[in-house]
Amino acid sequence: MLLLMGCNSPSTNDDNMKTITPIESIMTRVSVRQFTGDSISSNQLDTLLRCAMAAPSAMNSQPWAFVVVDDPELLATIGEALPYSRCGNHPACAIIPCGDMTKALKQSPDFWINDVSAATQNILLAAHAMGLGAVWTGIHPNMSYVALVQELLDLPEHIIPLCIVPIGVPAESPEVKDKWNEDNVHYNQW
Amino acid sequence: MLLLMGCNSPSTNDDNMKTITPIESIMTRVSVRQFTGDSISSNQLDTLLRCAMAAPSAMNSQPWAFVVVDDPELLATIGEALPYSRCGNHPACAIIPCGDMTKALKQSPDFWINDVSAATQNILLAAHAMGLGAVWTGIHPNMSYVALVQELLDLPEHIIPLCIVPIGVPAESPEVKDKWNEDNVHYNQW
Repeated sequence: MLLLMGCNSPSTNDDNMKTITPIESIMTRVSVRQFTGDSISSNQLDTLLRCAMAAPSAMNSQPWAFVVVDDPELLATIGEALPYSRCGNHPACAIIPCGDMTKALKQSPDFWINDVSAATQNILLAAHAMGLGAVWTGIHPNMSYVALVQELLDLPEHIIPLCIVPIGVPAESPEVKDKWNEDNVHYNQW
Repeated sequence: MLLLMGCNSPSTNDDNMKTITPIESIMTRVSVRQFTGDSISSNQLDTLLRCAMAAPSAMNSQPWAFVVVDDPELLATIGEALPYSRCGNHPACAIIPCGDMTKALKQSPDFWINDVSAATQNILLAAHAMGLGAVWTGIHPNMSYVALVQELLDLPEHIIPLCIVPIGVPAESPEVKDKWNEDNVHYNQW
């Protein structure tokens, strides 16, 4: 806890907090697409959003916004319009991480994609660490999906949804994928 | 440790492993740009690369490759060509996460940016959890930087560097930034 003095960090006494190390958390995270329909606590949601905004961003531009959808009717509507978003599979909520073009770097606006992706990965890891399930379902750069989500959520034009992350109590326990491949690693020059 | 049974996860006895929770690790990660010049262990490097490849990717395409630069002359050359990469600031190594266009989704290749960004965030979090310092320095979508890094590392055309992440023993202790902003959060429709 000493490490957290002086910054507004969430409590570590969140409901269902697993006692795993950060490395274990990264290595055991899985994509969960089926949920029980149980709700998550406001403390858990707060932790997810704080972890999202703790991500790094180009020149600390923080070019993001996060839409939390917990209205059951709206979740169902999104699930029908975009079935692969799994919003119809009884998540407690969905977080839609977005780029805010008014905050993106003027000289290189597309760095927002990297920044919001880092924030999304933080959400996935934080959910897993709290015993919740979540999955990253891609929207941008599929511009027809971007337009559809903008319409469903009444987003202004400068707010670009990157992905939809349904979150809830897992109703499935997918096996951890071993994706290690030494052929992906090169040393010094290719 | 029970959680790790059945998957090829790295040891949790890595050198300098801090005993912080995953949430604390996410909330206290900082960008470190000055390093002592000390080396990191092969076990630590292995953990960083395994955590990178544990990231999710669109349709599990794993469209990535990772170039590890630990040759001092090559680090110095990169540091001179791209000073903001901090490769001249005595990191033990740099990891350059790249997109591999031969593995990117045919129907929507640009999802590689999201996937490699998630892998990069895993590297940053794993480094922090082990007491190492690191920083994300952007390359793509600045195409002149992409071409320069491709030339310096002799990368084939289908390998697109996303960023450069120098990693090492921290020679500075930056304060944790509190980036929480409730105005970034919207509920249901905007």
